[in-house]
Amino acid sequence: MKKAKTEKLKIIPLGGLEQIGMNITAFEYKDSIIVVDCGLSFPEDDMYGIDLVIPDITYLRDNIERVKGFFITHGHEDHIGAIPYVLKEINVPIYATKLTIGIIEHKLREHNMLTKVKRKVVRYGQHINLGCFRVEFIKTNHSIQDAAALAIYSPAGTVIHTGDFKVDYTPVFGDAIDLQRFGEIGKKGVLALMCDSTNAERQGFTMSEKTVGRTFDEIFSDNKNHRIIIATFASNVDRVQQIINTAHKNGRKVVVEGRSMVNIIGIASELGYINIPENTLIDIEELKHYPDEQTVLITTGSQGEAMAALSRMASGMHKKVTIKPRDTIVLSSHPIPGNEKAVSKIINELSMKGAKVIFQDVHVSGHACQEEIKLIYSLVRPKYSIPVHGEYRHLIAQARLAEELGIEKDNIFILSSGEVLELDEEGAAIKGRVPVGAIMVDGLGVGDVGNIVLHDRQHLAEDGIIIVVLTLENGSGMVLAGPDIVSRGFVYVRGAESLMEEAKHILIDRMDYCMDKNITDWGRIKTEIKDSLSEFVWKETKRRPMIMPIIMEV
Amino acid sequence: MKKAKTEKLKIIPLGGLEQIGMNITAFEYKDSIIVVDCGLSFPEDDMYGIDLVIPDITYLRDNIERVKGFFITHGHEDHIGAIPYVLKEINVPIYATKLTIGIIEHKLREHNMLTKVKRKVVRYGQHINLGCFRVEFIKTNHSIQDAAALAIYSPAGTVIHTGDFKVDYTPVFGDAIDLQRFGEIGKKGVLALMCDSTNAERQGFTMSEKTVGRTFDEIFSDNKNHRIIIATFASNVDRVQQIINTAHKNGRKVVVEGRSMVNIIGIASELGYINIPENTLIDIEELKHYPDEQTVLITTGSQGEAMAALSRMASGMHKKVTIKPRDTIVLSSHPIPGNEKAVSKIINELSMKGAKVIFQDVHVSGHACQEEIKLIYSLVRPKYSIPVHGEYRHLIAQARLAEELGIEKDNIFILSSGEVLELDEEGAAIKGRVPVGAIMVDGLGVGDVGNIVLHDRQHLAEDGIIIVVLTLENGSGMVLAGPDIVSRGFVYVRGAESLMEEAKHILIDRMDYCMDKNITDWGRIKTEIKDSLSEFVWKETKRRPMIMPIIMEV
Repeated sequence: MKKAKTEKLKIIPLGGLEQIGMNITAFEYKDSIIVVDCGLSFPEDDMYGIDLVIPDITYLRDNIERVKGFFITHGHEDHIGAIPYVLKEINVPIYATKLTIGIIEHKLREHNMLTKVKRKVVRYGQHINLGCFRVEFIKTNHSIQDAAALAIYSPAGTVIHTGDFKVDYTPVFGDAIDLQRFGEIGKKGVLALMCDSTNAERQGFTMSEKTVGRTFDEIFSDNKNHRIIIATFASNVDRVQQIINTAHKNGRKVVVEGRSMVNIIGIASELGYINIPENTLIDIEELKHYPDEQTVLITTGSQGEAMAALSRMASGMHKKVTIKPRDTIVLSSHPIPGNEKAVSKIINELSMKGAKVIFQDVHVSGHACQEEIKLIYSLVRPKYSIPVHGEYRHLIAQARLAEELGIEKDNIFILSSGEVLELDEEGAAIKGRVPVGAIMVDGLGVGDVGNIVLHDRQHLAEDGIIIVVLTLENGSGMVLAGPDIVSRGFVYVRGAESLMEEAKHILIDRMDYCMDKNITDWGRIKTEIKDSLSEFVWKETKRRPMIMPIIMEV
Repeated sequence: MKKAKTEKLKIIPLGGLEQIGMNITAFEYKDSIIVVDCGLSFPEDDMYGIDLVIPDITYLRDNIERVKGFFITHGHEDHIGAIPYVLKEINVPIYATKLTIGIIEHKLREHNMLTKVKRKVVRYGQHINLGCFRVEFIKTNHSIQDAAALAIYSPAGTVIHTGDFKVDYTPVFGDAIDLQRFGEIGKKGVLALMCDSTNAERQGFTMSEKTVGRTFDEIFSDNKNHRIIIATFASNVDRVQQIINTAHKNGRKVVVEGRSMVNIIGIASELGYINIPENTLIDIEELKHYPDEQTVLITTGSQGEAMAALSRMASGMHKKVTIKPRDTIVLSSHPIPGNEKAVSKIINELSMKGAKVIFQDVHVSGHACQEEIKLIYSLVRPKYSIPVHGEYRHLIAQARLAEELGIEKDNIFILSSGEVLELDEEGAAIKGRVPVGAIMVDGLGVGDVGNIVLHDRQHLAEDGIIIVVLTLENGSGMVLAGPDIVSRGFVYVRGAESLMEEAKHILIDRMDYCMDKNITDWGRIKTEIKDSLSEFVWKETKRRPMIMPIIMEV
């Protein structure tokens, strides 16, 4: 007997398109909500002084009794970074593969939250039952080990979420992506595919991580007489493994430098994800006991991050490593969009110190290109396509691929943050939205820097501030002291003193005018000060500093 | 009879390596100084509020009686932009080709300086005698028409300065680069070659501008039913010519939009550098009278510049053009390093409006790649190599090419701004330096924003400001009013009020302490306020706002 009509499944991205990096998606069926990933994003250029941006989880908070758990696809910041903030409020178990849990635990420890959050290590192929959902972890490849796709089974149908992935037939460690399982689940029928779009604009196939190993072999062979310093992403353990392998083959000692690099290698080593031959690793202090050509440094900072080890070496600020004219330095990464100038600065600085810098063709991406995306679609053959991970340009590029592969245009959904997609075999449609947003973290403050503060910072940054103070007599409103003018971030050198003198005269006149007209309301006086000073400064300098009148009364 | 030993030639870059874009180089022989180019650079990311950066020309000012003239290689901002500022002080004639003079005149007119500066149009092959120097203009190719290399003849020998160039055997307008003349002068003996390094890291040959024309043909043929909007650099007249040609072939009307585009096309058209078929150009107001598929817009903004026409279209702020889902938009340029995110933002915004955005393979560079650089070296065969134009990484890349081509390492000079290279057939060496620097232009102010102001703006941008005001009694030093606390760009929302209340109590306590200890010196009181407030705020928020105590006395 056919069961009563099932409800629809709801898919709700709580970050993502409008907040790239904040990967966090709620799946909802009846009384059950599960969440996939919990990432943070880094501040945009105009978010002055902000350290991190995390998702607004009002929706989860409002439905806290229904939230069953978090499923994390892999250990990158844009998938795990907000866990310590979010789990403080929504304390449910986290499910992930072993290395991912290892990295999360390190993060929780830093936030003194390790004992407060339940974690569960999941194996590939394992199924987790949680409320109305069953979730299966499927092996994929990515630029960090232990990445997983998720098959999310609900009464309304199955959704496959790829996480960030690539197809690597010859991975450095562990197995290739489990294409068979994608095919098997696909054959049984998949409602929707949520697939990584990062490289959807790029034709062809992403190369295997192993090809970078061969490049290292060549570089080591070409630079036998030089110290070699290689910068790469801390979390790319396979990359580090390959550097260590090549170093070992060439009889070189290896130093690992940079806090995040040391952390991740430590975790990976402890959990068995990296194999370091005995007597290969040495401490940075021991470097001086070996000739340069017998050493390799593996370091952070390949993106030009100002505080990372490579930046400090390039600018001569590193306490333990001084770049020498005979060094060979390898940047084993591509600049992430927005980091191009910072990376270029480092290349310039290292070159000026006489070092040889190699930065072309020593990297492969961790994301699927067009042919890999087509492969996954062809294995899964979903009814609906929901491109994820990437800017709008990338999502629409995947949408076009999906259309080429025969998915109906109406069955392809590019979701904005907060949009609620309701779907089942009968149909799919966006039905309403939930509150979402970006919460800025600045120092210890979470969410206390809002748009007004940011707007003020932008104004201050562009034009500086002029402060006008005056002391009025209580009652009479007579000016007892001031107006005094002080400025910061405004004209300083030439002619500024006479400019300020003149401004002061204008303000004195304006105060006289206020007295004559019997204007005693402070708000009105402040407006008079602002307007007259603003007009004068614009006329003289074509600038619009923030003007801030402060009145005291005695 | 052999003449008395000649003096050495001096080459002094007054901008360049440390200030990319500020291309300005002095050539000095006895009583004669000539200057090649006079460019400006755009502010770095941390130069908050700065509009432009121009070279410090103290050296020219100090030697003004010896400066004979400026030779300009081509009409790009990084070669002409500082002319109105520099020529205000060093009023000598400018020599350049016709289109370059046309663009300079437009700029001078904007600065009300047209009647004050002498200009002389030079033909290719023409020689200008100025003091001890003779300067010959040689035809090259670049992404703007009428680009020239300079052969600078001095008693100490000949220097060839390529300007920015590429080798285009099939240019859209005018002749190919005059390789014969490079060979002829080279055969007679060249002391030094100053060659464009921008693309020295890139292998191979830069493609001809004509190849972009063929791409336009394909795009027009693939998009017959769509309005086409093409963004490119305003100064690339050949690119615009090719768009107009393709539009004309396809029976489309052309609108030119964006102030700088309209200006340059106007100048080029007036001087005969662009050929616009009759009845092709229409005014933007006439667009509505034609079906979309019969129109093309050529616009500025291909670099994502916030105020340019394309940005305004993308964000829906353009008064006359609304992007439609059926529009095809072509970005005919590559993002200049640093502009990647801005360009990406525009691609996203246009895609969100449903438009198709084409941005791959619709551009060729205006700069020589490695094989072209090798070609010029092989024609000129200079004794000394002085790589110019580019960051250090690019200069060193050219230096490596020069070495490969047999130039001795000791004869290759990468000059810092201000370094004085003395050279002749006998030898070359860096002998001293002259003052150089970057002068920031902010609004009407030239040079009045210095490092203190910039540093303050950075501090304000990152952390905001807390202002503490108090009024003291003259003589007694008693606190009559305050301390009042006002902040901008600092915490705003949650808990900030109680934070400020608490801060106020701390300051009152500290003032009591000052009274008790009989501390009446304002400097000392201000330090007490700063220190106690700074400590409190750091402890509570882990932030370091600028703290500014202001004391008044009545």
